[in-house]
Amino acid sequence: MSRIVIHEVGLRDGLQMEARVVPTETKLRWLERLVASGVDIVQVGSFVHPTKVPQMADTDALFPQVPRGKALLSALVLNEKGLERGEKCGVDLYCMGVSASETHSRKNTGMGVADATARIIAMAKQALAAGKEVQVSVQSAFGCGFEGHVPPENALRIARAFVEAGLRSLSLADTAGHAVPGQVESLFGAVLALAPGLEATAHFHDTYGLGIANCYAALRAGVTALESSVSGLGGCPFTAVAGGNVCTEDLVHALQRGGVRPDIALAPIVAVAREVASYFGRDMPGKIYRTGPIGAPEGGGGAHP
Amino acid sequence: MSRIVIHEVGLRDGLQMEARVVPTETKLRWLERLVASGVDIVQVGSFVHPTKVPQMADTDALFPQVPRGKALLSALVLNEKGLERGEKCGVDLYCMGVSASETHSRKNTGMGVADATARIIAMAKQALAAGKEVQVSVQSAFGCGFEGHVPPENALRIARAFVEAGLRSLSLADTAGHAVPGQVESLFGAVLALAPGLEATAHFHDTYGLGIANCYAALRAGVTALESSVSGLGGCPFTAVAGGNVCTEDLVHALQRGGVRPDIALAPIVAVAREVASYFGRDMPGKIYRTGPIGAPEGGGGAHP
Repeated sequence: MSRIVIHEVGLRDGLQMEARVVPTETKLRWLERLVASGVDIVQVGSFVHPTKVPQMADTDALFPQVPRGKALLSALVLNEKGLERGEKCGVDLYCMGVSASETHSRKNTGMGVADATARIIAMAKQALAAGKEVQVSVQSAFGCGFEGHVPPENALRIARAFVEAGLRSLSLADTAGHAVPGQVESLFGAVLALAPGLEATAHFHDTYGLGIANCYAALRAGVTALESSVSGLGGCPFTAVAGGNVCTEDLVHALQRGGVRPDIALAPIVAVAREVASYFGRDMPGKIYRTGPIGAPEGGGGAHP
Repeated sequence: MSRIVIHEVGLRDGLQMEARVVPTETKLRWLERLVASGVDIVQVGSFVHPTKVPQMADTDALFPQVPRGKALLSALVLNEKGLERGEKCGVDLYCMGVSASETHSRKNTGMGVADATARIIAMAKQALAAGKEVQVSVQSAFGCGFEGHVPPENALRIARAFVEAGLRSLSLADTAGHAVPGQVESLFGAVLALAPGLEATAHFHDTYGLGIANCYAALRAGVTALESSVSGLGGCPFTAVAGGNVCTEDLVHALQRGGVRPDIALAPIVAVAREVASYFGRDMPGKIYRTGPIGAPEGGGGAHP
């Protein structure tokens, strides 16, 4: 696992959970540093209705202003209208998905899983035809906050449809944080066995404390890209649920301790994490932004007997 | 991994970090429920100087009062005097260790690693001769808050000395929280290869977010016992370092989602975790005591899109 792609999604999957809308200029300051860190992909926002999700209302305005480094800029799109908006503002990579949970699918899109799959495949083909990169995901692949257990076959059926449609970049997302490592290894193994040359991305939430453990399980199964969130943004601040997305700087710090991705600069990500915590006025789930990395002058945590 | 031994160490490794001393009757109420949960071993305290570590001053008084369920009651001992005290109050299992870091060893015991190893081996033999169970550990096995990198050979040398002395229950402790999964699998693999029939225990701190990921790595390497701490007690409340020991209820919840140890009752552990958080008046690192287990009425966390 010498080259693991890191996809930073905090400014979308994280900020959409926050009651307080972050101003465009603040997002830009954060995005600049995230791009500069050397992570491979940075998610800028999503194309949703601005009154429904005011946190994402500036997505179209943001894209042209983000300094293009080496990072791809991605966006989540939910429908054809989103694709149109994305075309106008210069999205590099479209992320789009279908929930493996019938209830979650209907609540999120008003469509059942089968219809949603057909629609996403059509959208993905349209974006590919326009020369863009596309990642298709199976959401709630490991369990559902509404339905509980989601049979692996439900997720596999969607993945199979994606692969049969010629799509090659697939993601499994643990939207509810229900996944455990054995399940992760097994389901990603099954997805990667569907066809040669697939690229698999994993997206975990740390709701129940297993986010990073699941990342390692995914890497064992052959996953080559991980989605994570600066400072661990993405928890639900209105409930008792403290765990957000897997925290980017904690994940990168851990990978680097194992010799992976030494090229990513931790300092700019940690700087953003500190600003995020300060902006929202609370401790975020991430650890490294508080402890400092191991061996750094500010660190030294855990030196007790 | 159908039978993983769970060793609850929060009331020792956790409470020794807290400025506020927990009264004996409160500890007893917590210990009763931890024993009743069905975890295999519960650490009651350590035999240290009562003025040096006032949090542990009631260890001798506690032991005879803890209701004996099926759980073994363990204590940490640092020296021969501790063994004497343990003999008088009915310890089932003695835990004793040597640091793989020369600096850590000298700071903790005033002895270098070689002398400390010889002393611990003599103590272990004495306790075994008295018919007690003994677990010998290598502390700072994966890194040190003072020295940083600890070469694996340093930890292996101590483990080899233990094995050559006839000791069969070995633990590797990541005192500083520096371990990463690849390192864990490799070092435990090397220790378990020293002799047939060894029992290996893993003890991780979540300082940098890798506690549970390291537990899974240890299980892959053949470890059959894990040490953890109710509510994740064991962080250092005086510093920015939020991560304590691996959290018992989060760990058991995760293992149970994978079919392991369904016999352990989560509710009494969660109840203690809530009391611990309330007693210290702050959020503890554990997640399940706030979210509830997956599928429980109080849960439902992570149901967002």
